[in-house]
Amino acid sequence: MSNKLSHLNAQNEVEMVDISEKQATLRQAIASGRIIMTVESLQQVEQGNSPKGDVVATAKIAGIMATKQTSGLIPLCHPLPLSKIGIQITADEQLPGYHIEASVKTNAETGVEMEALTAVSVTALTLYDMVKAIDKSMVITDIKLISKTGGKSDYQRSE
Amino acid sequence: MSNKLSHLNAQNEVEMVDISEKQATLRQAIASGRIIMTVESLQQVEQGNSPKGDVVATAKIAGIMATKQTSGLIPLCHPLPLSKIGIQITADEQLPGYHIEASVKTNAETGVEMEALTAVSVTALTLYDMVKAIDKSMVITDIKLISKTGGKSDYQRSE
Amino acid sequence: MSNKLSHLNAQNEVEMVDISEKQATLRQAIASGRIIMTVESLQQVEQGNSPKGDVVATAKIAGIMATKQTSGLIPLCHPLPLSKIGIQITADEQLPGYHIEASVKTNAETGVEMEALTAVSVTALTLYDMVKAIDKSMVITDIKLISKTGGKSDYQRSE
Amino acid sequence: MSNKLSHLNAQNEVEMVDISEKQATLRQAIASGRIIMTVESLQQVEQGNSPKGDVVATAKIAGIMATKQTSGLIPLCHPLPLSKIGIQITADEQLPGYHIEASVKTNAETGVEMEALTAVSVTALTLYDMVKAIDKSMVITDIKLISKTGGKSDYQRSE
Amino acid sequence: MSNKLSHLNAQNEVEMVDISEKQATLRQAIASGRIIMTVESLQQVEQGNSPKGDVVATAKIAGIMATKQTSGLIPLCHPLPLSKIGIQITADEQLPGYHIEASVKTNAETGVEMEALTAVSVTALTLYDMVKAIDKSMVITDIKLISKTGGKSDYQRSE
Amino acid sequence: MSNKLSHLNAQNEVEMVDISEKQATLRQAIASGRIIMTVESLQQVEQGNSPKGDVVATAKIAGIMATKQTSGLIPLCHPLPLSKIGIQITADEQLPGYHIEASVKTNAETGVEMEALTAVSVTALTLYDMVKAIDKSMVITDIKLISKTGGKSDYQRSE
Repeated sequence: MSNKLSHLNAQNEVEMVDISEKQATLRQAIASGRIIMTVESLQQVEQGNSPKGDVVATAKIAGIMATKQTSGLIPLCHPLPLSKIGIQITADEQLPGYHIEASVKTNAETGVEMEALTAVSVTALTLYDMVKAIDKSMVITDIKLISKTGGKSDYQRSE
Repeated sequence: MSNKLSHLNAQNEVEMVDISEKQATLRQAIASGRIIMTVESLQQVEQGNSPKGDVVATAKIAGIMATKQTSGLIPLCHPLPLSKIGIQITADEQLPGYHIEASVKTNAETGVEMEALTAVSVTALTLYDMVKAIDKSMVITDIKLISKTGGKSDYQRSE
Repeated sequence: MSNKLSHLNAQNEVEMVDISEKQATLRQAIASGRIIMTVESLQQVEQGNSPKGDVVATAKIAGIMATKQTSGLIPLCHPLPLSKIGIQITADEQLPGYHIEASVKTNAETGVEMEALTAVSVTALTLYDMVKAIDKSMVITDIKLISKTGGKSDYQRSE
Repeated sequence: MSNKLSHLNAQNEVEMVDISEKQATLRQAIASGRIIMTVESLQQVEQGNSPKGDVVATAKIAGIMATKQTSGLIPLCHPLPLSKIGIQITADEQLPGYHIEASVKTNAETGVEMEALTAVSVTALTLYDMVKAIDKSMVITDIKLISKTGGKSDYQRSE
Repeated sequence: MSNKLSHLNAQNEVEMVDISEKQATLRQAIASGRIIMTVESLQQVEQGNSPKGDVVATAKIAGIMATKQTSGLIPLCHPLPLSKIGIQITADEQLPGYHIEASVKTNAETGVEMEALTAVSVTALTLYDMVKAIDKSMVITDIKLISKTGGKSDYQRSE
Repeated sequence: MSNKLSHLNAQNEVEMVDISEKQATLRQAIASGRIIMTVESLQQVEQGNSPKGDVVATAKIAGIMATKQTSGLIPLCHPLPLSKIGIQITADEQLPGYHIEASVKTNAETGVEMEALTAVSVTALTLYDMVKAIDKSMVITDIKLISKTGGKSDYQRSE
């Protein structure tokens, strides 16, 4: 891994790095995160949720749509074509709360780590928004990159 | 606190709730979060950072700009005028990493909790993006509402 | 009703009309539309739809989010605060297809007809997108204003 | 044509489908629609329109700009490069009203049907907005795909 | 006029300034600018322009739409309701080129100088884009605030 | 250079020109501009600026982010992947004010002149916004294309 912050040039000034000499390859990134709530909140969501699935569906759609806005949110992200966005939201009574995992693919000159992390973040924020009328103490936590493949170097989280 | 999910109507279907009968009042929300990295990464950022402050400045500006996009990201958020957005980013060698705190104000019929949480999230994502060339193992964590004031009921996190 | 196109000034040039002297009042607009598909397509959607409600939920959320983008899509629309957005999607085997109705409220100096019509249009487009893998012959039709209230003059469609 | 809703995976959950294994080819889609108004409204627009062309020009530009926002409006649309957008708006005293036809091209792994349909829809909404001061009874109707070419299977509407 | 940069707080860090204690008043800002081209380019645009008015109409609509995006473009601008946007584009054979003037109004706690300046800038950029196939040497110049009224202090350019 | 306005078709109507038969090649555009202020304003910014660099950093980030929105601002611009965005802001006591230069690269079927000019314009607007509390008389001037390379014909400004 580089020991240089890629977004800072020789004069330590921000710029969107030049990827024009890189090859477009198939790249994938997977990220995950969690939102923790009281067990009562989770049960209420799951019950209110069961007939229509709307809380979880809303969060998933928000996450997908935000993924496509990543380069508009993160200043130095390159705008990329995205060939796949998938988001899994899993209820967990032990947490209690929801696990979120996002998987993003592209055929491009740079990776989609930020897209996957943005997908997880906005999915979690939307879950918070949908549930906050009954529970404002929820915590969004543990947002991290699980793996990235397809670029110059792969990354696989060891845990 | 209500025991009803406000975004679901009587048929449990999503809708943006009607705030047309509520009063516009001065409302404020404060949220916080953290990004954890290796101590080596933090030191490198802080050193690379010192002459120009660009990593932290970039993250702060990204957070401010994203706050204004909140209602475009979170499906059932009302578009609101925002009268103040402030974001503090504090390095902490003990963490090691950065503490982020966002404060948002509005004169409106509903609160700005989601705006404050979005500010923290996108600030953290941008820090991740600016540092990921040297450290992909960073974790964004502990994003939560600290307080909200000015609406029908206030909220103050007890911890 | 005026016999003058409000978006054209004395020289017939486009401009966003001046509403600075108007009063903010509570305004509501209701619009409707339909998407027509084969009865087989409708049945397949409704069956695939029943366990999760995802097709209809996705279309509804897309419609709500697009409503908030109305002034970014329609050149001379004023950006307005929106106090309520509700969208109803109803399956109809006689059509066969879906009826869509959108209701939007604001406290503002001008009305939300375009917001309600945009809500219906993007909801219908999203239904098309979700179903087009099995039926490309669908037709989006009959998008119209049902009523507007709260401004200088009300409107109620007579049919 | 598939008998499976492509945006629902095996568990009937929404996701943006994976096109990473598909070939980029030149694809085109053509869509059309109509807006119906009273003959008096049409004449007034055409007369007001003749010296400057602004009503029709505004609608056309709005349609072109919205086409580029398609993947931001329709949740499961892939963001695509667009190589051509053309919109024709034709007055028709027999209707009375306007015919709208949009043609969109891309070199990509998936088609631009939604882009062409979005172009027609926002063009029609903008015509409505430009004329609604004199006629609120207008109806936007008959929005449909005329043809798509360049993908795995072509489509040509039979009527 | 203040001798303090309002967007920097006591620690010289960027933040969106707090306007929550200010009064909403009717405010207006007027800005202007010019685009200079060869006399041959101007004549060709004016001739090509006369039957349809499309070059100038396109630029005007782009300027109006960009005005509504100001707070999304300029990091520390407050999102404001806008009650009027007007843009005048005037051909001048002496320049040779076009004069652009934009007038923006709001009822808000802060002014719309940036909105008026953004309107002029994007109108000029669009003129450039519409004409660049015949003339790449055009220069956009002299973008400035003409007046602002309605806030704590008015401004009127002396020239 | 063509003697035809490329955005007008045979009927002089606007359309986004068809680039589907063109080759994707590496293209670069460089644009520049200036913002002129009083020498006192410049000194105050530079002094306030020195500890944190925030005024200049904010303007640079705003310029980079706006570059990615170019096709959303300029009606007939094609949405393009961007492989590099760099912006230089240089203080000049002789001006007095700032010189701005932007360099943009893409691998695409058409050039990035508008992206480079948009980068310069929004950078200048943001500098104006950051400094306007102490000086409203600033002028943004001399925005022009310096060079474009990589397409059918190159351009190099002679001055």
